[in-house]
Parts: sequence; structure tokens; C-alpha cells
Amino acid sequence: MSSSLLEQEIRSQPEVLARLLERERPHVEEIVTSLPPFTHVLIAARGSSDHAALYAKYVWAALAGHTIALATPSLYTLYGRPPRLDGALVVGISQSGQSPDIVAVLEEGRRQGRPTLAITNDASSPLARAADHVVALHAGAERSVAATKTYTAQLTVLALFAAAWSPESASHLTALEALPSAVAQVLAQSTDIARLAERYRYMDRCVVIGRGFNYATAFELTLKLKELTYVMANAYSSADFRHGPIATVDVGLPAILIMPRDATYSDMRELAEELQRRGAELLVISEEAEALALARTPLPLVSGVPDWLSPVTAILPGQMLALHLALTRGYNPDVPRGLQKVTLTL
Amino acid sequence: MSSSLLEQEIRSQPEVLARLLERERPHVEEIVTSLPPFTHVLIAARGSSDHAALYAKYVWAALAGHTIALATPSLYTLYGRPPRLDGALVVGISQSGQSPDIVAVLEEGRRQGRPTLAITNDASSPLARAADHVVALHAGAERSVAATKTYTAQLTVLALFAAAWSPESASHLTALEALPSAVAQVLAQSTDIARLAERYRYMDRCVVIGRGFNYATAFELTLKLKELTYVMANAYSSADFRHGPIATVDVGLPAILIMPRDATYSDMRELAEELQRRGAELLVISEEAEALALARTPLPLVSGVPDWLSPVTAILPGQMLALHLALTRGYNPDVPRGLQKVTLTL
Repeated sequence: MSSSLLEQEIRSQPEVLARLLERERPHVEEIVTSLPPFTHVLIAARGSSDHAALYAKYVWAALAGHTIALATPSLYTLYGRPPRLDGALVVGISQSGQSPDIVAVLEEGRRQGRPTLAITNDASSPLARAADHVVALHAGAERSVAATKTYTAQLTVLALFAAAWSPESASHLTALEALPSAVAQVLAQSTDIARLAERYRYMDRCVVIGRGFNYATAFELTLKLKELTYVMANAYSSADFRHGPIATVDVGLPAILIMPRDATYSDMRELAEELQRRGAELLVISEEAEALALARTPLPLVSGVPDWLSPVTAILPGQMLALHLALTRGYNPDVPRGLQKVTLTL
Repeated sequence: MSSSLLEQEIRSQPEVLARLLERERPHVEEIVTSLPPFTHVLIAARGSSDHAALYAKYVWAALAGHTIALATPSLYTLYGRPPRLDGALVVGISQSGQSPDIVAVLEEGRRQGRPTLAITNDASSPLARAADHVVALHAGAERSVAATKTYTAQLTVLALFAAAWSPESASHLTALEALPSAVAQVLAQSTDIARLAERYRYMDRCVVIGRGFNYATAFELTLKLKELTYVMANAYSSADFRHGPIATVDVGLPAILIMPRDATYSDMRELAEELQRRGAELLVISEEAEALALARTPLPLVSGVPDWLSPVTAILPGQMLALHLALTRGYNPDVPRGLQKVTLTL
């Protein structure tokens, strides 16, 4: 049986990230030294790229001290009332670099004389043309509709910037070099997900929870489940979940918890125990034996990945779960119903 | 039959907003003139207050040109790595003013010498004590767990700031004065929602879509449905929905569209037609006869409310729908399962 394009793209990630680090590390360091001063960052993105932007909100703040605002593209396009961008670095993230609303935010940044940066898999796209600086993903064409290798490549570019901006730049850049092999390890140990996925053949809804650096992972895994398996999945931080949505938990509700060992771990473990008391079925993504032991379905990571890089590995069991859930349901993972690879929104 | 606290609080909104406008309008104008310059705004909030913050992202940008970043509280609490807040106005929004993570963001703002503003229903709360300026909601105690009157009161305070900052301040403040009577009208014409809700007795999932100013409305209505009826509801902008989640649409999926006539209307109408082609069941919140005619269940607004104030009226049919859906399912709308009024998160 020949594997799907999606599976091939998932498996190509170690190689994609190694190539990206090799080609773009000096370029990112050069951009960082050449940028004018800025007080905050404005990022425009949609879909998986918007989840990469959520990661930037944490990693650019934690390592480099930057405050990140996510753009409101409709104000630039439909309403024609863009805000003042005084003090901002304006960033667009897009696999295709095509969506007009994202391009419009960068064009407005340029009109207002602000520095602009595009992160895209197509260095000749409209987004790239609208930016002062372009970082290419070098991921090769992404042929399946659901983004996988371009998502982790975007995270890796954002991590490169965080490391380059950080006062401990050297040690952070060294940690980044180890990332492709950690990705390879997690993928190698994810082979039994094909069997585990079968249990969720008739799941029609679930919640996905992560906090801090892995808030982004919760949203990205939710989108993979929606695109590939049509499950009504809902993403939350553990804090937001307690402010209301926890009322939706009923006996048997599948709850996917992303909880590598970091500063959010004990908060996530408390929530895991609360969910168990309410009868939810836990799927746990973690390298921590104690956390995995709480789960009906453990999805192990590897140890040694620092907290700020953990989203790059933590999404991988989720990608594999969404792939195999699509297959066990008889859906074509390469062509989800009613979707196209490039979505153009205004 | 005596009505629920929730229904009483929903019905009290015209009076709450009129009192708030009377008491806080001069105070807000005074704060606006006394604030030092800032390049951007950082807002910390959870739950319904976070949806009010989403409204601020649009209304403070469109009327006053400000760029808004939503805070990442875990960086201030769990990780202990808050970003630099150079140039920021730091705002906390909370009904109770109690949640430690939201208070921590304001305290950090003060530590970094930035101006701070609290918007809360409790002017003696920890959040209020951490702020240079406090705007009280004057909404009276909110006794049902699900926020209704404090949500529209928060929106009204945010609209007051937008109007006071705007170059067309006088006309915008006049438009605000008409808001309580528009709220009263929408509530008066919402009486048949009790009957309409019965159709959705066995709905177990839905999507809620709004864009621009009413992106916030989509999230707030989704939260009301989760808290009060335990439905797995998912909120989207029409643009984000097309970037993947539209794959979840199947025949019969209830789709609640918030589409008052504004600059987002034709984009929303296109999406409504696409959803019809895919067999979704439409519930439409709009004052526009053409939009209501697309719906299996029309939920009418009133005309004459400007686009930037429409979220204050557009949430009302949603509040009534969630209330009556809870009642028709036999749930207590005042005390959702497993929730408390004040949620303390770190």
C-alpha cells in the first residue's frame, strides 16, 4: 500500500527542518541586526499560519521580551480603516503567500513606513513582494491540503528569530540544532498510533487543551482534526477552559491534553485530574511517565527538548492521530471535503 | 412561573446600560485626556471579558486607530517571563476583578511604569486596586453564573473609550446615548425565541460565525451555548472558517450567522449561500430582511444601530436563545453544571 502524500509530508519533517536551519539561520541573524527599533510586533496570518503566530506570541515574548499583537485583517480590507502602526514590526505568515487579506496588512505596514517581514514557503508570492525581508521555508511543495511540514517549518523560523533576539542567543541556537533529531525520534515512536486511532472511529467531538508555549499546539491539532476527520474539536488553554467551557465535559468526552514538563505542567495535571473526576477520556501528549499514566491513550514525546521548542515536537503525535483517524474512517487524507490548498480571503 | 435570575439579568440590560452611560461618560472622557501617550494597548481578560477584549481590538482600532495586543497571562504567572511593555497602555477587564492571572498583568504594567486601566463590576477588587484608573460597570450583582449584563456593560465602556478617543467624538457619543433604547427594542421583539428554541432540543454541536466588529459576538454566543446548554459550539470569523474548518460542515449542521448590514455583510452572505449549498441549517441574526430570509430560524435585530455598536444588540438574540435552549432541555440556567461565578486562575 502506497502511503498518502500527507504521511510522506509528515515523515519528511526532520529533513525539512534540518535544511531550513542550515539555509536560514545566518539570514535570520542578519535580519535581526538590520531591523530598526520597534516597540511591538503585529502579525497577520490565517489557519495553521495563525497558530504559528500564537506560538510567536509566547516565544518572542519569553525569549526576546517582545509584545505581539495579532492583526484584524478585515479592518484593512472590508472596513478600510487600518489602525496606526507607530512602533510596530509588521509580520505576515503564510504557506502560499497568496491570501489578499494578509498581503493587505503588510502593504499597510509599508505605507506607514514600518519594517515588514514575510515568512512563506513561496519567496516569489505577493506576500514576499510586499515585505522588506523574506524568510523562505524551503519545505518543498506541500501537496496535501492539511499543512504539516510547513507548520513546523514556520515554528522553526519563529524559534530562530526568538533565539537570535535573545540575550542567550548562542545556547538557544545550539538547542535548535538538535531539533530535527528530536522530531525524527518522536515520529519513529509514533508507529502504534495507527492502531490506537481505531478506538476513536466514532468520536464526533472532543476538546484539545494546552497552555503557554503549547496553546498554539492545541489550536493546530484541533484544525488537523477538523480538516482531516470532520470532528467538532475545540481548543482551549487550561485557564480559559475553566472560565466556562468546562461545563461541556460529560462522561466519555475525549480530552486531548498537551502537557510536556514545563512551567504549565502542574496546572495541566490538576486539570487532567479534574477531567478524570468528570469522566472524560484522556489522551495525553507528554514525555512525562506520570502524565502518560493518567491517559487511556498515551502519546509519548521525547525528553530533552526545551520548553520553548516543545511545540515543534508536541504537534507530531497529533498529526499522526489525525492522519490515522482519517484513514480508519475511510476519508482521503490528502483531499479533505470542500477544501482547496490555497484559500484566498479578503 | 417565576423567571430565572438569568432572564431577569438579560431583561435588565437597557436600564444597566443607561445608568452606566450616565455615570461613566464624563469619567471616561476625563481618563482619555489624562492618559500619557502610548503606541499600543495590551489587554488581559478571561471568558466573556476576553470576548469584550476582542471587541476592543476592532472598535479601538477602527474609531481611534489603536493597535491592540491580547496578553498571554501564563508568561506573567507560571513562566515568570513577562515581556517588555514599552509604549503600552495596560488594560484589565474582569467582571469580578478577582482572577490572579489578570491582576498579575496589571501589576507588571505598573512595575514597568506604564499607565493601567481596570474595567470591572467591583471597584474595590484586586484588579481595581492594581490600576491607575478604574471604570466601574454599575451593573449590580450578577447572580447567574453566565455573564450577560456585565458583558454588554463592558462593551459599552469600551465603546465609550472608542468614541472619546475618536476625532468624531461628539457624533459617536450621541449614537451611544441611543443604545439602551435599541437594546430594549431587540429584547421586546425576542419573545418568540422560547418557541423557536425547541427545534434545537437535541442539537449537540453547531458553529457560530461573525466577522469584524461581530467576531466578538460569535465567541460570546458560543460561550453562552457551552455554559448553558453544553453544546459543542465553535466560533469563527468567516475568513478563518474558509481556511479549513468549513470541512466540518455536514447536512443539518446548525450554523448561527451574525450578519448585521455593515462592511462584512456581502462576505457573510456569500458564506451563508455556501453553507446552504452544503446543507447546513442557518440561524441568522440580522436586521436585514434578505439575510433573515436565508434562515430556517431568523433572529431579527433593529435597524439604525451603527456598525461599531452592533455587537451590543447582536448578542441579545443569542443570550435569549441560550436561555431558552437551557430551559427546553431541563437545565437550570442560573447554575450550569460544574461552574462557579468567580473563577480564579493563575
